[in-house]
Amino acid sequence: MAISVETFFLVPDAQGTLQAQIQQMIAQGILSGRLHRGEKLPSSRRLATHLGVSRITVTLAYTELLANDYLTSRGRSGYYVSDNAPVPPVYEPTAPAEDRVDWPRAIVKTFSGGDTLDKPRDWARYRYPFIYGQADPTLFDHANWRLCGMRALGAKDFSSLTADYFDQDDPLLVEFIARHTLPRRGIAARPSEILITMGAQNALWLTAQVLLNARRQAAVEDPCYYALRDLLTQTRCTMVPISVDSNGLPPEAIPDRTDVIFCTPSHQSPTTATMPMDRRKALLDRARELNALIVEDDYEFELSFLGSPSPSLKSLDREGRVIYVGSFSKSLFPGLRLGYLVGSAAFIREARALRAQVLRHPPGHMQRSAAYFLSLGHYDAQIRRMSKALHDRRRTLEESVARHGLTVAGRGAYGGSSLWMRAPAGVDTTALAERLRTQSVLIEPGAPFFAGPDRPRDFYRLGYSSIQRKSIDAGVAQIAAALSGYWT
Amino acid sequence: MAISVETFFLVPDAQGTLQAQIQQMIAQGILSGRLHRGEKLPSSRRLATHLGVSRITVTLAYTELLANDYLTSRGRSGYYVSDNAPVPPVYEPTAPAEDRVDWPRAIVKTFSGGDTLDKPRDWARYRYPFIYGQADPTLFDHANWRLCGMRALGAKDFSSLTADYFDQDDPLLVEFIARHTLPRRGIAARPSEILITMGAQNALWLTAQVLLNARRQAAVEDPCYYALRDLLTQTRCTMVPISVDSNGLPPEAIPDRTDVIFCTPSHQSPTTATMPMDRRKALLDRARELNALIVEDDYEFELSFLGSPSPSLKSLDREGRVIYVGSFSKSLFPGLRLGYLVGSAAFIREARALRAQVLRHPPGHMQRSAAYFLSLGHYDAQIRRMSKALHDRRRTLEESVARHGLTVAGRGAYGGSSLWMRAPAGVDTTALAERLRTQSVLIEPGAPFFAGPDRPRDFYRLGYSSIQRKSIDAGVAQIAAALSGYWT
Repeated sequence: MAISVETFFLVPDAQGTLQAQIQQMIAQGILSGRLHRGEKLPSSRRLATHLGVSRITVTLAYTELLANDYLTSRGRSGYYVSDNAPVPPVYEPTAPAEDRVDWPRAIVKTFSGGDTLDKPRDWARYRYPFIYGQADPTLFDHANWRLCGMRALGAKDFSSLTADYFDQDDPLLVEFIARHTLPRRGIAARPSEILITMGAQNALWLTAQVLLNARRQAAVEDPCYYALRDLLTQTRCTMVPISVDSNGLPPEAIPDRTDVIFCTPSHQSPTTATMPMDRRKALLDRARELNALIVEDDYEFELSFLGSPSPSLKSLDREGRVIYVGSFSKSLFPGLRLGYLVGSAAFIREARALRAQVLRHPPGHMQRSAAYFLSLGHYDAQIRRMSKALHDRRRTLEESVARHGLTVAGRGAYGGSSLWMRAPAGVDTTALAERLRTQSVLIEPGAPFFAGPDRPRDFYRLGYSSIQRKSIDAGVAQIAAALSGYWT
Repeated sequence: MAISVETFFLVPDAQGTLQAQIQQMIAQGILSGRLHRGEKLPSSRRLATHLGVSRITVTLAYTELLANDYLTSRGRSGYYVSDNAPVPPVYEPTAPAEDRVDWPRAIVKTFSGGDTLDKPRDWARYRYPFIYGQADPTLFDHANWRLCGMRALGAKDFSSLTADYFDQDDPLLVEFIARHTLPRRGIAARPSEILITMGAQNALWLTAQVLLNARRQAAVEDPCYYALRDLLTQTRCTMVPISVDSNGLPPEAIPDRTDVIFCTPSHQSPTTATMPMDRRKALLDRARELNALIVEDDYEFELSFLGSPSPSLKSLDREGRVIYVGSFSKSLFPGLRLGYLVGSAAFIREARALRAQVLRHPPGHMQRSAAYFLSLGHYDAQIRRMSKALHDRRRTLEESVARHGLTVAGRGAYGGSSLWMRAPAGVDTTALAERLRTQSVLIEPGAPFFAGPDRPRDFYRLGYSSIQRKSIDAGVAQIAAALSGYWT
């Protein structure tokens, strides 16, 4: 039986080449059971005319389907659905069943809820996206990433693409981090002291699982990265929030019996404070006094366009007390999901075993692509370009903020990609952000960064890594207008 | 100062094109501080002669480095290290410190140890690799995977590559699984009932975390996938191993007070038993009686070349009791790290929140590449090719095993990729595997699959997904010879 040409149509705005769309349409028709074995396809000429595409496009799609044994060709009589084509579903899907499980009882631990923000996924549609932590297409070197990705898809890298690494990592990526990335932070580490993670989030999670339980105490900065507080809550440790000042975490405020200290000395999140050298030494001294460990999240150290970054805590650590967390999410892109942990081999061994149990290993292809991007020098070139653009945006933002009379609460001594702002007393920035969103302005309210029930509600964060420089002043003007009209 | 041409050399057997190697060599020289700003590079002619490559290759490498601002060109006088080139390390790496941390005290939970096997990573160098679960380069459609990967690297997919999805998944992949993959197993599911995971391992781990703690009881098959036992041990639940028979898990043996039943009805791991229809119904009845949940790991259902796979338990489930685990590791490749969980929305919500906390989301690029490979029909074509090859290998293996007098303990009624074998009484297959390994034969000893201290030591597994058909008989002959000489 011949299949009517009318049953085929191209979806408007579909992705991929026309050839790929036609191939996909026919393959899915077979896979869904709509087209049956032995049925005759329309001739390439007829289908081409019907779809309004060139005949060669249809012929190429048919040829590809022939190679995959979806279709067979019977000489001049045309193309047929192959007798070897995949079988359509054997079982009729069941109707949605009635759920009789008492889920609140069955679920022993809830993970939903928490402080982690629900950021708008369509941020790119907003005119003034003062958001944080997404890749800017105008700054990311997509062309060279693509070349590195294609190289990592090649025959020579078949094993790094496909193999089950168990608990191991891509040796190329580990070597580059050990030989080039860490030395810039003053850190010397052997491969057994490095673990590749699914971003900094995963690194912090693994660390918390290995070091904390209900009998341990953790000190965290207040305010801090909210997702860190959420994941520490799950360990049931005693969590002590320590208010940060303009130099970051004050070591003398860390209470006795603290086992692990989480901090962001390079660039406090979210206040952007950089910890001075003498305080870094005091923090290490305090940790020694407490016999505590320090987890150093060294995020954004790359974006230091205003001055050299301070040496990492890990580089000052003579006793193995510091566990170092690095990430490529800010400097490359968050969808990469690659970061790393550096620490004593005894610690890394357990973090590695836990990672293997949870997910085995980050996909080899992503690791190898990153290894190429780094080792070919594209990474450093990109950091320089990003730093230049962020420096320009930062200048513009500082000028706009001053001109419109907004108050900066923290400004990152050496660079970064955000300003920490304070609204006039009484302003609830969560409500402010809601209102601004309707005016195509995205800002981040500050309350979720703070611990406890009585959170300051007047702080907010302005990220400048995703907004174009030319939009900054108009966006700040909107914020200023919303603030001045806040009480009306 | 000019840089001497003698300081440059190409590493033999290095990867990538010559141009890429030259580019990498110079970039790394700059990044490591060996080449300084303002230094003059050798002329392209001199470097080309020195390295024994064509001059255009060197010129192209220099041009690329120029674009990245590693080099500058001063007209006719040549190429220099750019004044904007990245700065070399500011800090001298510290000498390895003396570790003063009491790690056994600091680590609250150990994850290393466990039953998970240490498989040889260099398995491809062995002549007779009867191993399980690695991709066979001769069966995997690398060419089309590469095309799909390249498409997913394109400008249209910039957002799916780079964006932070938070707790979400690639809608294209979820849609394909819901519309095409699950209906073949008789399962109807909405997107809110599907979660993409980092392979089946991650799916099982997430499930165990949400459903089990020290107050819950889990029933597991004995023998079973050892990594499952390891991850259940970490939840501190009461774990009850149930001996499987030739029809898989016997429902009547599941004790009272069981909360969660883990099973592999399609193809018991590792015995390969397929659970008959009446037992599937009895298992669902028993779960209802116990008010328990069932976690169905439906691995290898795709490789059913000897007969149609049985309907999944999930397709028979009218009450939401079954949580379904699927994976692309066996049918595509394990390095992909993609699988999925299907269950009631209340359960998926918590698994999703936990996944977000642990790792956010599987990389968008891997999800999108898989979505293309699936939707273009390459996946089904590959399954057909694999099934045909595995069928051939299976026939050869069965013949060889019979000819050499080896005993099959389980053989997978509908297909699969391994045989479950039993050695003569008294043989320790762990020692046997060690001995065979020195003869370039890899087999998997059976003991780690069993629970408890008194594990049967005479079982072993022969995988045929990585060994070529022509090698099978000689490999089996070696195993038979080793067994017959075992006592000598």
